[in-house]
Amino acid sequence: MAGSTYGTLFRITTWGESHGKALGVVIDGCPAGLALEESHIQKYLDRRRPGVGNISTPRKEADAVEILSGVFEGRTTGTPISLMVRNTSQISADYSEIASYYRPGHADYTFDQKYGFRDYRGGGRSSGRETVGRTAAGAVAARILEQLGVTVYAYTRKIGPIEADMTRFDRDAILSTPTAMPDREADRAAVSYLEEARKTGDSVGGCMECIVEGLPAGIGDPVFEKLDANLAKAVMSIGAVKAVEIGDGCLVSSRRGSENNDGFRLNDGIVTKMSNHAGGILGGISDGDRIVIRAHVKPTPSIFLPQKTVTGDGQETEIRIKGRHDPIIVPRAVVVMECMTALTVLDAMLINMSAKMDSLLAFYGKK
Amino acid sequence: MAGSTYGTLFRITTWGESHGKALGVVIDGCPAGLALEESHIQKYLDRRRPGVGNISTPRKEADAVEILSGVFEGRTTGTPISLMVRNTSQISADYSEIASYYRPGHADYTFDQKYGFRDYRGGGRSSGRETVGRTAAGAVAARILEQLGVTVYAYTRKIGPIEADMTRFDRDAILSTPTAMPDREADRAAVSYLEEARKTGDSVGGCMECIVEGLPAGIGDPVFEKLDANLAKAVMSIGAVKAVEIGDGCLVSSRRGSENNDGFRLNDGIVTKMSNHAGGILGGISDGDRIVIRAHVKPTPSIFLPQKTVTGDGQETEIRIKGRHDPIIVPRAVVVMECMTALTVLDAMLINMSAKMDSLLAFYGKK
Amino acid sequence: MAGSTYGTLFRITTWGESHGKALGVVIDGCPAGLALEESHIQKYLDRRRPGVGNISTPRKEADAVEILSGVFEGRTTGTPISLMVRNTSQISADYSEIASYYRPGHADYTFDQKYGFRDYRGGGRSSGRETVGRTAAGAVAARILEQLGVTVYAYTRKIGPIEADMTRFDRDAILSTPTAMPDREADRAAVSYLEEARKTGDSVGGCMECIVEGLPAGIGDPVFEKLDANLAKAVMSIGAVKAVEIGDGCLVSSRRGSENNDGFRLNDGIVTKMSNHAGGILGGISDGDRIVIRAHVKPTPSIFLPQKTVTGDGQETEIRIKGRHDPIIVPRAVVVMECMTALTVLDAMLINMSAKMDSLLAFYGKK
Amino acid sequence: MAGSTYGTLFRITTWGESHGKALGVVIDGCPAGLALEESHIQKYLDRRRPGVGNISTPRKEADAVEILSGVFEGRTTGTPISLMVRNTSQISADYSEIASYYRPGHADYTFDQKYGFRDYRGGGRSSGRETVGRTAAGAVAARILEQLGVTVYAYTRKIGPIEADMTRFDRDAILSTPTAMPDREADRAAVSYLEEARKTGDSVGGCMECIVEGLPAGIGDPVFEKLDANLAKAVMSIGAVKAVEIGDGCLVSSRRGSENNDGFRLNDGIVTKMSNHAGGILGGISDGDRIVIRAHVKPTPSIFLPQKTVTGDGQETEIRIKGRHDPIIVPRAVVVMECMTALTVLDAMLINMSAKMDSLLAFYGKK
Repeated sequence: MAGSTYGTLFRITTWGESHGKALGVVIDGCPAGLALEESHIQKYLDRRRPGVGNISTPRKEADAVEILSGVFEGRTTGTPISLMVRNTSQISADYSEIASYYRPGHADYTFDQKYGFRDYRGGGRSSGRETVGRTAAGAVAARILEQLGVTVYAYTRKIGPIEADMTRFDRDAILSTPTAMPDREADRAAVSYLEEARKTGDSVGGCMECIVEGLPAGIGDPVFEKLDANLAKAVMSIGAVKAVEIGDGCLVSSRRGSENNDGFRLNDGIVTKMSNHAGGILGGISDGDRIVIRAHVKPTPSIFLPQKTVTGDGQETEIRIKGRHDPIIVPRAVVVMECMTALTVLDAMLINMSAKMDSLLAFYGKK
Repeated sequence: MAGSTYGTLFRITTWGESHGKALGVVIDGCPAGLALEESHIQKYLDRRRPGVGNISTPRKEADAVEILSGVFEGRTTGTPISLMVRNTSQISADYSEIASYYRPGHADYTFDQKYGFRDYRGGGRSSGRETVGRTAAGAVAARILEQLGVTVYAYTRKIGPIEADMTRFDRDAILSTPTAMPDREADRAAVSYLEEARKTGDSVGGCMECIVEGLPAGIGDPVFEKLDANLAKAVMSIGAVKAVEIGDGCLVSSRRGSENNDGFRLNDGIVTKMSNHAGGILGGISDGDRIVIRAHVKPTPSIFLPQKTVTGDGQETEIRIKGRHDPIIVPRAVVVMECMTALTVLDAMLINMSAKMDSLLAFYGKK
Repeated sequence: MAGSTYGTLFRITTWGESHGKALGVVIDGCPAGLALEESHIQKYLDRRRPGVGNISTPRKEADAVEILSGVFEGRTTGTPISLMVRNTSQISADYSEIASYYRPGHADYTFDQKYGFRDYRGGGRSSGRETVGRTAAGAVAARILEQLGVTVYAYTRKIGPIEADMTRFDRDAILSTPTAMPDREADRAAVSYLEEARKTGDSVGGCMECIVEGLPAGIGDPVFEKLDANLAKAVMSIGAVKAVEIGDGCLVSSRRGSENNDGFRLNDGIVTKMSNHAGGILGGISDGDRIVIRAHVKPTPSIFLPQKTVTGDGQETEIRIKGRHDPIIVPRAVVVMECMTALTVLDAMLINMSAKMDSLLAFYGKK
Repeated sequence: MAGSTYGTLFRITTWGESHGKALGVVIDGCPAGLALEESHIQKYLDRRRPGVGNISTPRKEADAVEILSGVFEGRTTGTPISLMVRNTSQISADYSEIASYYRPGHADYTFDQKYGFRDYRGGGRSSGRETVGRTAAGAVAARILEQLGVTVYAYTRKIGPIEADMTRFDRDAILSTPTAMPDREADRAAVSYLEEARKTGDSVGGCMECIVEGLPAGIGDPVFEKLDANLAKAVMSIGAVKAVEIGDGCLVSSRRGSENNDGFRLNDGIVTKMSNHAGGILGGISDGDRIVIRAHVKPTPSIFLPQKTVTGDGQETEIRIKGRHDPIIVPRAVVVMECMTALTVLDAMLINMSAKMDSLLAFYGKK
């Protein structure tokens, strides 16, 4: 199935494998007239590259993006924007052994079941490198949202047992700490925790959070295309995410209605909620408040401890994975969550333009 | 936007409002030759009707389904199946007051922002009655899955603080208890808890879980159309759901890789996982194990306690909602979760038929 | 496959068979705030009903449309509009014989090949009655276009050898002549021609034309979603249409570039074409001129002369079709062509709203 | 809008402009296990390159295709296949003047109206070079069809007044004559005709035809996704096509039913039509006979004669286009028609796999 396409009016199609020649994305439906250059996209790609310190894989990819189409004299033309990143650092030899068995927690077995065989080099299409395309496209979406007054940012909320203290929220820390936490103290503790895990050959799970600010009320649809439903899909489609929460998320199942409802009041004449348990979405439509999304991410499945598994030709075996692997997925996935959120929100904003007869008539000069 | 359509090959389009003439669904893409009659669908609709005891709204809808097209001599013809349920019990007078203000926790405000006005009778399209169409369609999907050896069932896992004890799991209890819990003891405790909440005019949240058994490995896609991503969207699109978990869900963010990975072994020569933290999905594709999905549902927003809000013409006010409202959403939403899951899984199975050249060649008699 | 849905933002899903309980359509994505009542739609449905004189089938259907959802206090709410027409005049007995063999020119054989069996009553889903849903939806689209200053009208251009003389073009004649020709003289000649054909038990082909006036330049897309490509699909999807032309159509293949190019000039300061060989579309995008589409329609396949065919159980046979059948399809298909064109043009206009950054920024108040 | 994507299960997304860095396509949904290498695709791209003799543009593009993803060890993996062709021969200086005015017959004016500005170099996205992506993808589709026993081929039927004599049909001539005509005599006459036109600075229209052989009965859908409707869209989306005919096409509008109906008979026990006026499609579904599609193509709009037009800043002017331009579009478009047809037919075959319960149950081993 054509499962590498995302979005309705702002639509992206990603392609590429971990150890193929290149990875990329085609953005179709980008409004014409946006000033765009490679550096705007590169900034996002750099955030998903291996980070500082010891917590991420020593594999070094330049991940230099090239704009191949859709931009003329520095502005988008309205036609497809093709973005490509050449793979330069892959070492196929690293992966030759894993061709023979199914790595626990990976998609080796399910790919074989679905397609009959698989590109076993570095996970092929199921590698984390698949997110290069999404991130490049999300950078363009985020740039448009910025001009619309909408800001999207994500960060690491928790690593194993160590949670960021939101009273110390420091947005600069997100981009400058190795963990992408918005709390430098928690970051330091998490780095130690990760180093200890790495020493034992193990890996660690974590939680990330994404905020959308400045989104007007009225965005999203009421039934299957609810804004929260689409955000859930967008975020759950990031490899290793196992749970998605909107607003207070899981907590609501233990609440009373009187605690959970957000009353309305007037704030300078503007309708505002008194609290934001809802996470900025009511009935699938944005309510003008901050959108809050949280994702729980499993530990990196590639660990260096012995594991029991089965070979492709049907033998039980015990394996020890070698190679280069981050002990945690979250810090590098934060920008991917930001990008998937940006893509989802922008698409909903474009779709929303025709929700009312009044808007339609005004657009075509009849009102 | 066309937000009332769901699915790619097995595609449904729902319509109707709480207090309109009727509600319904068109199923397009149902394979030809399925034996189908109204009673198969009615059984599912009956499960989302107000239940026994005091825990659900006294509004009584017969919700009798009529098959209007797509079935000939008792079998589906491959053309659209139109299903309709007439609204018979609506009393518009009940809802006249709420036209003037925005109910906290409801979509009144966001509908007004999006569309400029709203059908205020019983919530219009944002009412729980919108799920009539999904449920009718899901019943057809579930019937096909059954013939494919795939079973889907959902139940109430938790009501407020009271959780079903899964060691006492009793599948019959799901259909026979007022709470749809699979544990009769927890059911009794929950009923008391709900009665106490109802007396205070308050409402309660809860958690529901859905299981898919018998799904072969290889179903789903690896990038944006991951089976878990689509399930997350499907379930989050049910009104009041605020979090979705797959397998161990939120727990994974506190785990080590060595705890969370599911090793593979052979079971009578068949590749099997030793545990199922993954909830039956690896890399977006089913692994042959049970699929496990959990949804956290907020308390019914309609409570009978005083609440602060704003009127449509911009005045702060305090309201007290009247009328008929369940103190909890979960027991009636369980069948809806089951149906959204069935629709998602069936669509993925149809799409999967063309994944391999071998299948394609065999289908057309060339291999 | 889900082949009964048409459109992206203004999306319709039709359902129903010739001899089922009812036929209908769900319109999803209709902008909120349009004044709409059943009479607006009925006017279009009445045009596809059997006409005056002897040229159309004596079957009399009231085809009374019912709005089941999506309209509140006389205005569309932005949620799905469900429209239904009950079948009241079907006589299943008329069709019992045709269950046994494949009628030449009909879809009996191909339905059996695709689905394994068919609803043989009156052609089931492949009957001309399938167009009830399209027509009802098209009436709503046409109503919106009217408010946008866009007029769509179709008429019979030719019946067998008798062609309307466009120098005598009389728009009133379209709605008042039995042939839907815009030339009363040609209409009279065509009626005689049809009566003569009917007497011999034969049927006749014809050609219809549709004009779109008032469409601004810039509507449509440059590659696969060209406005002319979508119009071609829309019109070719009407049963019995075998060719579609845009502008001068087939004639262009015999032309020189110097004859066929439409030069540009200024008309009161507005860029205008000096001629309209292009039929109002350049590079898939409207150029501000009249859109001209022509469709060639085969003769009614149900004729009363003896025909050779094969039975479902594999015997050669000679048949004589009985029952009630128009000797020509075109006059009743004219309104269907108008409706498919309206649906296509409106969808393109909604999609066009997000083509430019400037429009997007202006819509959200940032410019 | 996302108008550069085509297909449902076998879905392609094209990108690139005449004078950008590269052009390409992403194929998503290609079944896994197809043996594929660049040479298979190159063969098709070579056919749309400037041909022999004097009839096509002297611009020489190598158009060497590169497979960037989706193929591993010589076989497709089921993940997106990214194909790219670098632009190597563009000379931007050739096109500097045309930036200032609107070329008659081109999309310059409509692009400006839609997007606010345009990439004026060689027509940008509206250039004939846009078909590089479609052709590369179509080559893959054709390769799959071949394995399914389905053959697709197109040829030039007519150039100006000179028509191929089908009694002299010679399939080899299609690939070896400069006009792609299947009749060497007509080819010679057409070449002379084109040379004469070129000398006067003018251009010529023509007609092309495409045949699908070996397609089983039962492919396509009965309402909006009729096989002929989708073919009409596919072919009309090729730049410069102004009319599409299926089977006898325009002729049917002058016929009687008794002439136009194709009777059925048995041929070695197989149901067969006695004639093929229908062009292999009944009710939108293939009937097992040859599919016949015809397209009428306008003369190349770039001519070297003086033409009247308007400048971008609103002045009337007379222009003379310079540069390199074919005097006819058809011979190079033949392979594009073949490719669009192959893409459409293959997608319909994939979709058809789930039309029947029996097929579904058999696929999943339940029958």
